[in-house]
Amino acid sequence: MPDVVVAVDAMGGDKAPQVPVAGAIAAAREGIGIRLVGDAAALEKALGQHDDVPAGIEIVHAAERIHAAEDGVKAVRAKPDASMVVACRQVHEGRAGAVVSAGHTGAMLAASTLILRRLPGVIRPGLAVPMPSVAGPIVLIDGGANAECKPEYLAQFAVMGRVLGRDILGIDDPTVGILSIGEEAGKGTDLVQGAYALLDGTPGFVGNVEGRDIPKGKARIIVTDGFTGNVALKLYEGTAAMIFQEIRRGLTSSMRGKVAGALGMPVFKGLRKQLDPEEYGSAYLLGVRGISMIGHGNTGTRGMANGIRRAAQGVREDVTGHIQAGLAAGS
Amino acid sequence: MPDVVVAVDAMGGDKAPQVPVAGAIAAAREGIGIRLVGDAAALEKALGQHDDVPAGIEIVHAAERIHAAEDGVKAVRAKPDASMVVACRQVHEGRAGAVVSAGHTGAMLAASTLILRRLPGVIRPGLAVPMPSVAGPIVLIDGGANAECKPEYLAQFAVMGRVLGRDILGIDDPTVGILSIGEEAGKGTDLVQGAYALLDGTPGFVGNVEGRDIPKGKARIIVTDGFTGNVALKLYEGTAAMIFQEIRRGLTSSMRGKVAGALGMPVFKGLRKQLDPEEYGSAYLLGVRGISMIGHGNTGTRGMANGIRRAAQGVREDVTGHIQAGLAAGS
Repeated sequence: MPDVVVAVDAMGGDKAPQVPVAGAIAAAREGIGIRLVGDAAALEKALGQHDDVPAGIEIVHAAERIHAAEDGVKAVRAKPDASMVVACRQVHEGRAGAVVSAGHTGAMLAASTLILRRLPGVIRPGLAVPMPSVAGPIVLIDGGANAECKPEYLAQFAVMGRVLGRDILGIDDPTVGILSIGEEAGKGTDLVQGAYALLDGTPGFVGNVEGRDIPKGKARIIVTDGFTGNVALKLYEGTAAMIFQEIRRGLTSSMRGKVAGALGMPVFKGLRKQLDPEEYGSAYLLGVRGISMIGHGNTGTRGMANGIRRAAQGVREDVTGHIQAGLAAGS
Repeated sequence: MPDVVVAVDAMGGDKAPQVPVAGAIAAAREGIGIRLVGDAAALEKALGQHDDVPAGIEIVHAAERIHAAEDGVKAVRAKPDASMVVACRQVHEGRAGAVVSAGHTGAMLAASTLILRRLPGVIRPGLAVPMPSVAGPIVLIDGGANAECKPEYLAQFAVMGRVLGRDILGIDDPTVGILSIGEEAGKGTDLVQGAYALLDGTPGFVGNVEGRDIPKGKARIIVTDGFTGNVALKLYEGTAAMIFQEIRRGLTSSMRGKVAGALGMPVFKGLRKQLDPEEYGSAYLLGVRGISMIGHGNTGTRGMANGIRRAAQGVREDVTGHIQAGLAAGS
């Protein structure tokens, strides 16, 4: 019997069901129990394309799916048999400790909040996104669950982000910064100033940080509203992708460049891997009852498998219990 | 007689007066008239360190300066003889067409707004920041002048940004996008949705763009509030700087890497230059009576000279007149 079971939305993402199925198989090989949710016939077929499918994968039939073009909240309400909704229900009903989907982000946020429900005392769940920095992994929260926020949300994001930093990323006593436009306490919007007043003096709080401090890892937990956070994480990823693309284009345009590219490959590959979102697999919706992870729609098998592994780790480390305890203690 | 005169705050920036003086000399060699504002003795001395100082540089004595640690708005009000304030006054009094400072950003925003004053019809001046993208230069506005914005500000930023794009960056009929967290019209904050309604159907408007679209140059003029804009521009610069630093660190750690670095140098140098903020010199405060440019505090001589050149170009192209006409016409 596996010690932890993860529900996987097998119909979510650009390359479903192949990628979720392949990711689930990789995770199941490591002893993670899987409830694979989606069209049973399609899933049987996708599993049949793999040799040596490990034990511990159970198919849960879901007749519908939510498409990228749909309105997320409406789709969740209108389609109780959608794979994502059924997958979330696995956690609510105690059949799984965590749920992972690479499907419609807005729908998964809605499904997780509506079906798993908030933990007691949580005002708003926040999307916590692990990201790379030169100081090691950092967490940006909120990455887009709440476009408009109040200071109290950010104060809770700090507590929840610190739990994730400790339990999943192995950061000892993570520092916390508020994303702002100047380091001084009086800088920024009313939201930032209000959050600063609430966070001042709390464990790990280092004050405001600026956009340039994100890649430096000046704070390991960066709290912000979901609008700024979403812009920042997409810009961060997009800039790294653009630079690597331009380097490749430059180096492949001459023989001299090709030689440089071949010789420098270990460095470029290492750095690309370090900055690759798939290393971290997925984002965590923190503050709901259970572990809910949301992957990139274009995530590959490695990203999917990493997401399932991280989700299982979240259950084993009792992230949810630690968040409850942290919010109760105010740290 | 030079056709255009630029007032230079010679005491602003980390390396003042040396860098502003050297930048001013480079610009004066190209026929730009300079009013060099600061402590006359210090400026005489700094000029004396250069051979062959060109004609067209006039020293304007200013007894005080504004320091980085001061509160910008208070300092401007308290120090009427500060170099930055005197430099702005040169434009207000018609002795110069433009003013450039690499000093205290907040103080320069305040000085420009208070002394130059807003153009008729402008609700809020916006800080327009030229930035690189794979599609060519783009303009982010507002880069930090107004932390909190209303939809009407963003609509005016679009008009002013398009003038800058055409007149200074040579972009024909620039596209305009609102920075948001999803492309659909209904996505984002109330601010974004309100701005979308105002901009829908206006010249060049392409809708919402996301953080990842900035390095792609999906829109050439990106309008946003000054909080999000400031976070974005510092993150963009910081990410590029971090990646180049990590590549250098990786390549210099082995002989093989060093060879790769030497062979790939033209590519790395070209890309670094393409992504270098100093290429663009400075940010423009648009919407005031005259050209006001604000440089990085750590800008070098090349950045300073570029800033002065761009400021002169702004006067020659009549950016201010075009902004007035554009706002009057609503495009």
